[in-house]
Amino acid sequence: MADTPVRFGIMGCAFIASKVSRAILLAPNATVSAVASRSIDKAADFARANGLPPETKIYGSYESLLDDPDIDAVYMPLPTSLHLKWAVLTAQKKKHLLTEKPVALNAGEFDEIAKACEENGVQIMDGTFWVHHPRTHKMKQFLEDKELFGELKTINSCFTYFPYAYPEFFKDNIRVKPDLDALGALGDAGWYGVRSILWATDYALPKTVTALRGGVLSEAGVILDCRASLEWEDGKTATFHCSFLSNLTTDITAIGTYGTLHVTDFVIPYQELEASYTTTSRSNFKELFTGWAPLPSEHAVAVDLPQEGCMVREFADLVLSIRNNGAKPDKKWPIISRKTQLVLDAVKASVDKGFEAVEIVG
Amino acid sequence: MADTPVRFGIMGCAFIASKVSRAILLAPNATVSAVASRSIDKAADFARANGLPPETKIYGSYESLLDDPDIDAVYMPLPTSLHLKWAVLTAQKKKHLLTEKPVALNAGEFDEIAKACEENGVQIMDGTFWVHHPRTHKMKQFLEDKELFGELKTINSCFTYFPYAYPEFFKDNIRVKPDLDALGALGDAGWYGVRSILWATDYALPKTVTALRGGVLSEAGVILDCRASLEWEDGKTATFHCSFLSNLTTDITAIGTYGTLHVTDFVIPYQELEASYTTTSRSNFKELFTGWAPLPSEHAVAVDLPQEGCMVREFADLVLSIRNNGAKPDKKWPIISRKTQLVLDAVKASVDKGFEAVEIVG
Repeated sequence: MADTPVRFGIMGCAFIASKVSRAILLAPNATVSAVASRSIDKAADFARANGLPPETKIYGSYESLLDDPDIDAVYMPLPTSLHLKWAVLTAQKKKHLLTEKPVALNAGEFDEIAKACEENGVQIMDGTFWVHHPRTHKMKQFLEDKELFGELKTINSCFTYFPYAYPEFFKDNIRVKPDLDALGALGDAGWYGVRSILWATDYALPKTVTALRGGVLSEAGVILDCRASLEWEDGKTATFHCSFLSNLTTDITAIGTYGTLHVTDFVIPYQELEASYTTTSRSNFKELFTGWAPLPSEHAVAVDLPQEGCMVREFADLVLSIRNNGAKPDKKWPIISRKTQLVLDAVKASVDKGFEAVEIVG
Repeated sequence: MADTPVRFGIMGCAFIASKVSRAILLAPNATVSAVASRSIDKAADFARANGLPPETKIYGSYESLLDDPDIDAVYMPLPTSLHLKWAVLTAQKKKHLLTEKPVALNAGEFDEIAKACEENGVQIMDGTFWVHHPRTHKMKQFLEDKELFGELKTINSCFTYFPYAYPEFFKDNIRVKPDLDALGALGDAGWYGVRSILWATDYALPKTVTALRGGVLSEAGVILDCRASLEWEDGKTATFHCSFLSNLTTDITAIGTYGTLHVTDFVIPYQELEASYTTTSRSNFKELFTGWAPLPSEHAVAVDLPQEGCMVREFADLVLSIRNNGAKPDKKWPIISRKTQLVLDAVKASVDKGFEAVEIVG
């Protein structure tokens, strides 16, 4: 048993499940044991289309997946509104949970899920790939370098896309349906913006959050475009922009007293196995302002596993420690997810209150 | 006379005057005829240190420069609080005016200067170098391309620097003195942010401007760090950040429905004679989100004259048309300057009103 990799059950066959199934197969310490859909045919099609091993079990209901004693962990790509029910059941069945983001519709729901995980001794982690990329760790080292970067002053983050090749998006996609992913662009793209800001600030919660004027809601009241400003007690500031109405753009710019970090593909790297970022440190205009000295530096990071594979590997390592060695679940991950949810809640509240500043209470 | 280049008088020997004197010497249609300072020794030192031609006239007062009938145009690098007096006198002496930014402390003062220029038939242009760089025109072509860029949705602009090698800055520099450059970081770095946003929007004034919480004022009440959001009637939005408290960063990110423009050295290019920018058009994540297709494109633009030389050449061409051919001054430049001042005024008003949204009335 100690040598058995983490046996995943895939709960639902959303598009993103194809990517994560591949990641589970790529990770050295994990395997796909079962796939469940409300339709057994859909589950079987999914297994075939994604090259899952022939011994993969196919279930026609989520309940039967959860009843399988040979499943260690569930990967949950369900619409957000279904997370509370299925995440709590997953925990109660003592299965570890790797769930798509947003984990929940709000921090209250999140707390119910986290409580169920804690009470049942299972690990929870949200499926934010990019934080597991080795590039992300390198970038963080730069932000922590007091000589090269100094003190963090401001972060600007952006994740926008426009489904121009998919005009039915605004009618059909779960991301714009109030009963499925009610947080819209805020829960989807905004999750990355908020996470990137918290990542840069060592997960220090801001004191206030203010949505900026000019966002766009759908007729059903779902956020399609939203910007917000975050402010910390110590003077740090941040902005983020999330949208379904603007060309694909995925930037983090973090500025310290002495350094600046630029990355323009933080969500999904331009190329799968090599990613880069740019830094400047103590740059200045040259004499007579004829250029910069020093010039920016580009840093490339090669990887042997795509970022979602790194995520699965990290999650599976935690699960193996619990399963094989009786370790406790790592609290870092639910803490990070919860803070992300708290900030999303505050942005939503600020939109609802006509762009008033909203205080965050951790 | 028709062959005589535009004869500039330099009014004041600020640091930036060295850069612009060099630009005047580099421009094919301009020359430096005189330098004035309140101290004749300082003016003579400036002429020597900057390699001005031996026949350059040296004046110990601004009045004597303005009384020189052989001066066509004045370049004015004085502190902003002195602009109103000296700009109006310059116009009344029928001399064209190339002035450092901000042109005035507010739009009201600006209008007095612009009126004097109009009544006296002289050209006014503010000294914002980067808008004259051929790269800027190329970037604008991209923003105007309905196929590649689509409709402009949002702009984010940033100009921050931290004078870490110059700790006396916060005590000594004119940029933080309420009686000299009272607009502080907003008038200095913020001028570029506002201009870049107006440039991207074809100089359409926003409907509302809201300063964002968390800015920093000096003890004397001068803005050291400031962020603001701008919103247009048609749904376009923008943010900018200006600061004396964060590492040198000079970015424009403009996002349309189909395209994105990134430039990270818009104020002063990294290198004097070659500058680049990056675009993406209709980018998408590849199948299974393993990368992007197409990848971003980098565009390099080589120039034979630095951007401030391009500015002087463009200004001098207008002056020559007026002087030699009786043309009228080009109204585009005062219109652009005035809109920049109006937005600065609104940001300042929003800061003063505790971050309330301020409507802009053109």
